[in-house]
Amino acid sequence: MAKTKGPRRPKAETPKGFRDYFGTEVTARKAMLDKIADVYHRYGFDALETSAVETVEALGKFLPDVDRPNEGVFAWEEDSDWLALRYDLTAPLARVAAQYRNDLPTPYRRYAMGPVWRNEKPGPGRFRQFYQCDADTVGAASVAADAEICAMLSDALEAVGIERGDYVIRVNNRKVLDGVLELMGIGDQPELCAAVLRTIDKVDKVGFSGVAELLQSGRKDSSGAFIDGVGLTTAQAQRCLDYLSMTSTAKSAEDISAGEDFDRTGYNSFIAEEIREAISGSNIGCEGVKELEEIASLLAAQGYGPDRIIIDPSVVRGLGYYTGPVFEAELTFEILDEKGRPRQFGSVAGGGRYDDLVKRFTGQPVPATGVSIGVDRLLAALAAKGRLDAAAQGPVVVTVMDRDRMADYMAMVGDLRAAGIRAEMYLGNPKNFGNQLKYADKRGSPIAIIQGGDEAAKGMVQIKDLILGAKIAQQATVEEWKSQPAQVEVPRDNLVQAVRDILDRHT
Amino acid sequence: MAKTKGPRRPKAETPKGFRDYFGTEVTARKAMLDKIADVYHRYGFDALETSAVETVEALGKFLPDVDRPNEGVFAWEEDSDWLALRYDLTAPLARVAAQYRNDLPTPYRRYAMGPVWRNEKPGPGRFRQFYQCDADTVGAASVAADAEICAMLSDALEAVGIERGDYVIRVNNRKVLDGVLELMGIGDQPELCAAVLRTIDKVDKVGFSGVAELLQSGRKDSSGAFIDGVGLTTAQAQRCLDYLSMTSTAKSAEDISAGEDFDRTGYNSFIAEEIREAISGSNIGCEGVKELEEIASLLAAQGYGPDRIIIDPSVVRGLGYYTGPVFEAELTFEILDEKGRPRQFGSVAGGGRYDDLVKRFTGQPVPATGVSIGVDRLLAALAAKGRLDAAAQGPVVVTVMDRDRMADYMAMVGDLRAAGIRAEMYLGNPKNFGNQLKYADKRGSPIAIIQGGDEAAKGMVQIKDLILGAKIAQQATVEEWKSQPAQVEVPRDNLVQAVRDILDRHT
Repeated sequence: MAKTKGPRRPKAETPKGFRDYFGTEVTARKAMLDKIADVYHRYGFDALETSAVETVEALGKFLPDVDRPNEGVFAWEEDSDWLALRYDLTAPLARVAAQYRNDLPTPYRRYAMGPVWRNEKPGPGRFRQFYQCDADTVGAASVAADAEICAMLSDALEAVGIERGDYVIRVNNRKVLDGVLELMGIGDQPELCAAVLRTIDKVDKVGFSGVAELLQSGRKDSSGAFIDGVGLTTAQAQRCLDYLSMTSTAKSAEDISAGEDFDRTGYNSFIAEEIREAISGSNIGCEGVKELEEIASLLAAQGYGPDRIIIDPSVVRGLGYYTGPVFEAELTFEILDEKGRPRQFGSVAGGGRYDDLVKRFTGQPVPATGVSIGVDRLLAALAAKGRLDAAAQGPVVVTVMDRDRMADYMAMVGDLRAAGIRAEMYLGNPKNFGNQLKYADKRGSPIAIIQGGDEAAKGMVQIKDLILGAKIAQQATVEEWKSQPAQVEVPRDNLVQAVRDILDRHT
Repeated sequence: MAKTKGPRRPKAETPKGFRDYFGTEVTARKAMLDKIADVYHRYGFDALETSAVETVEALGKFLPDVDRPNEGVFAWEEDSDWLALRYDLTAPLARVAAQYRNDLPTPYRRYAMGPVWRNEKPGPGRFRQFYQCDADTVGAASVAADAEICAMLSDALEAVGIERGDYVIRVNNRKVLDGVLELMGIGDQPELCAAVLRTIDKVDKVGFSGVAELLQSGRKDSSGAFIDGVGLTTAQAQRCLDYLSMTSTAKSAEDISAGEDFDRTGYNSFIAEEIREAISGSNIGCEGVKELEEIASLLAAQGYGPDRIIIDPSVVRGLGYYTGPVFEAELTFEILDEKGRPRQFGSVAGGGRYDDLVKRFTGQPVPATGVSIGVDRLLAALAAKGRLDAAAQGPVVVTVMDRDRMADYMAMVGDLRAAGIRAEMYLGNPKNFGNQLKYADKRGSPIAIIQGGDEAAKGMVQIKDLILGAKIAQQATVEEWKSQPAQVEVPRDNLVQAVRDILDRHT
């Protein structure tokens, strides 16, 4: 028989699909979100922090990415209710907009930043808790609200360090897509429509020919597996492809500026006209084009031209709940993938108009529009561009040479901290001095302070410049080493000034 | 039969015991935590953000406040594991310290700020999700680590706006309390010891005579219900009371400074000597006093005297896991309670040394010490003192007089925002102009911008100073009203400057 008794030690493990964030992983994200919050605040948006826990009935069944397996929420029963962790920040907003509808201003502009949870099968790089950063306007039917969100998204990207030209915000309208589906003769089959939209959304992955196959009988994917098609006729598929082919002119701001004989300022009017031709005959489609033109002209009035925001008929956005304009922000620069091949960075934010979410609660339609920034992807983009706030400087480490004089060392640390300098006394076992220097190294310390009995008797301290020391260690000649003393002795009273001088020299 | 069919609308309600935070509730907390994080960073502490979800086995059974009913965690089963929301930030730190023990520096100083969840019966003002703000040092056996935490807590309180003299940090040592229990002859009965400590901890509520009764046969509480006593003999109880009576000399920094013939600088040495006499005969007790004296002298070396940090033998701290120094920060100013009676604000932070939490995972003892700030209580204290960051200014509201000129209004908003001024265009239905001004009022807007067709034709805009307007509305005479025009007309090109001038005038 296996032993089952005796105290078993718990495993020190993050649950599967969850992770911990250390040091600059936390502070770099915070610095980025602070900059975005500044922009949102300037646009008149107010902060909202809802509880992490919602009733399952309030959350509803609006989970995005419906074709993922094992999608769901973390839920538990309480008395006769089911509670769950929020899976996004939009469903709680809809609940808040309904719950506080008599107290909130109308329209209500709010931003929210925080973790959300998805009960999905964890995989490499796919976590079950991650940050979202949303801004939404509830109670504004005008497409001016959509235009504002696009302008704000553009400002937010530039505020965190994505330069103009390195991103483009693509805008489309679900009504235009509805028009295309209507003209294909399938407008009255919602499930088929959803399948067609999901297929269109794959054009970046499988290309036009791939979409053509998937719209009809299906295709073999790269692994050789056969993917069933949607089952359209050739004529229906062709209509869809004709529409999609327009989008090749709208692939990126870079492409636009590359075409020399292309009228850049008139680009959005040009593409709107193209779309109008493609969906003429569909009322809903025409309404969609009109809204796109309004958005483009409102944005142009504020100086947001097609170098930042373009109409792009290929944008679909996965979520089922969008009802009007949809938009996504794409970073247009290339990074190297894990195999060293260059590829476009891709999408970092998306959103659109969803007029029916609040209605679930109140029965009254409440127009709403908003955007969600993919916090981790945007952070990764900033890291790739070298635009993350510099790694936090390690603390000055005051070493402990003499256990009986802890109070002296602590006073040094106190002086440095009082002067605003990040500093620590070594708090481990001081017996092995080498360990103290190893610790300083691990902490990324710029400076170590040393005071043994001899120095103390003279009222002096040793200041070891660890950054310079590391540089000298890489240099070749003894002469250079001698000419740059990485360790100096100064009077104890001059400690703070001497440390500050060295820190200033390194920045 | 009751109707059970048909779509039922979900209730728009926060789950019981949870709440939402709006606008300045979010930003004031954030501003406070940012200031605390600055102090922690200066002390060399690194940020850590663990996942909200832990395995139940990793969390263990270290919930504080063991005599509360319905205590517990929010948990759910997954495959064969149980997962749960963290109930504090200490248990996850112990898990992290064990999990990453080969990668983290030793000692590891970390701070953490974020929500925690308690599955308790909700009550008025008692929420099941709330913020904690912790700083801990793992791997440092020296009481210098405890002293550092106390100094840092003092700096953090002053950084957020609690003035020196308005708070005191009380320090005690569990070893001293263990000494008292040993001398009472019950040191070998851990459950009885815990009951005695919980009783001592009630001295602020029930007074010395109440504690005396509760240590013996029991007492009637204010509702008339009989509370069973711990069952000590009169002699045992007397020993405990003798110890406690010392603490009356240590009640607050205010008391200390009020006693004119009291040697303030020597206060901590004096009280340490008193404690030493009271527990002489107990080795563990003497060890505790020695540590307290060390802490006081390390703090004094950095200038933290008894005006900020005092030794107080009455401090117990509820948690069972403390093994050495314990400390709590108390705000000493009075506020009015719900009945208008003045009372001391009380405790806003507490902590201590817990040397056994990491050992649960690794089997190796790992010394650790830390502090947790009660975020909501500290925020309430700052509000009571008028020290919260001023309410966020509402946005300048650009009203919509003419639906066809949305682009013009949006351009105005764009100009204001580009100049760093918080501004919005009214995005609701513009038909009723009164509603637009009501909206501006609800938003706390300082200024409304108005441009009808006439102004537009002249290239002018109206700027309505809503703050001045509100003041004028309260004034008596027509002369005053006329001499202070709350609405001015300026050229459209001067809009930004004119708005800035008015905003500057009001700040």
